[in-house]
Amino acid sequence: MSNYHTTRRIEFRDTDAAGIAHFSAFFDLMEEVEHELLRSRGLQVFTTDDSGTFSWPRVHASCDFQSPVKFDDIVDIDVDLVKVGEKSLTYKFSFSIDGRLVAVGKVISVCCQISERGAPKSIGIPEWFSQQLLASD
Amino acid sequence: MSNYHTTRRIEFRDTDAAGIAHFSAFFDLMEEVEHELLRSRGLQVFTTDDSGTFSWPRVHASCDFQSPVKFDDIVDIDVDLVKVGEKSLTYKFSFSIDGRLVAVGKVISVCCQISERGAPKSIGIPEWFSQQLLASD
Amino acid sequence: MSNYHTTRRIEFRDTDAAGIAHFSAFFDLMEEVEHELLRSRGLQVFTTDDSGTFSWPRVHASCDFQSPVKFDDIVDIDVDLVKVGEKSLTYKFSFSIDGRLVAVGKVISVCCQISERGAPKSIGIPEWFSQQLLASD
Amino acid sequence: MSNYHTTRRIEFRDTDAAGIAHFSAFFDLMEEVEHELLRSRGLQVFTTDDSGTFSWPRVHASCDFQSPVKFDDIVDIDVDLVKVGEKSLTYKFSFSIDGRLVAVGKVISVCCQISERGAPKSIGIPEWFSQQLLASD
Repeated sequence: MSNYHTTRRIEFRDTDAAGIAHFSAFFDLMEEVEHELLRSRGLQVFTTDDSGTFSWPRVHASCDFQSPVKFDDIVDIDVDLVKVGEKSLTYKFSFSIDGRLVAVGKVISVCCQISERGAPKSIGIPEWFSQQLLASD
Repeated sequence: MSNYHTTRRIEFRDTDAAGIAHFSAFFDLMEEVEHELLRSRGLQVFTTDDSGTFSWPRVHASCDFQSPVKFDDIVDIDVDLVKVGEKSLTYKFSFSIDGRLVAVGKVISVCCQISERGAPKSIGIPEWFSQQLLASD
Repeated sequence: MSNYHTTRRIEFRDTDAAGIAHFSAFFDLMEEVEHELLRSRGLQVFTTDDSGTFSWPRVHASCDFQSPVKFDDIVDIDVDLVKVGEKSLTYKFSFSIDGRLVAVGKVISVCCQISERGAPKSIGIPEWFSQQLLASD
Repeated sequence: MSNYHTTRRIEFRDTDAAGIAHFSAFFDLMEEVEHELLRSRGLQVFTTDDSGTFSWPRVHASCDFQSPVKFDDIVDIDVDLVKVGEKSLTYKFSFSIDGRLVAVGKVISVCCQISERGAPKSIGIPEWFSQQLLASD
């Protein structure tokens, strides 16, 4: 059982001249769905509390492609939160069509303090955030 | 004679399942080339002076498509600065392949003060900016 | 009353370093919603009948931007089929947030015979297609 | 020493509301540069010979992000062809700015017969192709 399930349609803009979904489209989908998972837990990608604003830049993203996906295909996306580290979250995304696995991706997002100027700075994940993320719906 | 000429290759990511460049790719190209024109005049898209930072949000973008463009095509792009208004710049982009016109686009960019918070605010184009933009190379 | 109404969330990928939705995102949205409108009428973007396959390349796309749109904004999109020509369809898209208009776009799509090789060839819109498109739901 | 070196400017479209290059932009850059490497060897992404057309769909793409990249940054991209398998090519991409590594990516592309209809079919890499790819310039 995955932590979260959603679906997406492959839009025309996602395709390329090989007639299939471009490999980069899967990375955009992973981010969209990561954000959707957070919202489903009542959380935001950008959170502002007393100590400022924190967000979740990626330090890793990967995808293995098993079989091509076409325009207008409806893709099932299952998300597993495979690791809740001290400072990072690791998500696994399984893409399938009619029960047939077409791609598997992984994203590692790091909790970072965001300031107007300067690079994001890694911080520990606030405990209330992890708790709310892991609370079963 | 156009104000600026450059070329771009149609990358695979620009194509779609119809086997041709997706229409939205032309809008990305127009922005890229608008910025390249500014750089060719020693100007920046984001300029910071005593009164803050100003930049050039678009209020209009359009494109007419005459004939399809394929992966790996080298496109000639001619830019005409058709109007230098008090607060805006109007650019015309002519896309051609081997002398054959394939698309014509237009962009209107408005000079705006940019602050960290709040929407961009339209201002008059600084005179030194217009002068440098129009100075022949 | 518009012919079709839908909503879209502004995804993080749609934003740019000015902190707002990139202007090109509106063009991708217009295409997505044009296709959604066709599906809502039981039609497809690519239709195959006895005489081959026809589809709808764009000959014109434009957008006027009234005010900035931010990450996570929910945008209302109203589509008006403003002209059903002999060979083309003209769509108008009104984008608004909480009743406030933020952008208005226009797309002209031309009915074209699509073959594996060679450029799309403009044809008359099949009568059954126009009828089904205009049938009230 | 890498097999190939090139540079790219981070365009405005590549950025996001965090003010830095969006992680997905690196994947588009990897593909662009993979194709540029092939061209530098006199090869094409799509090759047609007696037995049909073959191309290089990806079965894997990944990227590790070390530090943020901003609009207008010039990125050095070094490509290493780390493995020439019987049926696949493995590329490593090192992205750096002023000698400082900012990201490292990997792509595995599989040699596939491409037909108008049906999924790409994996084939052995033609010997002449590998030889030309590995020939020193």
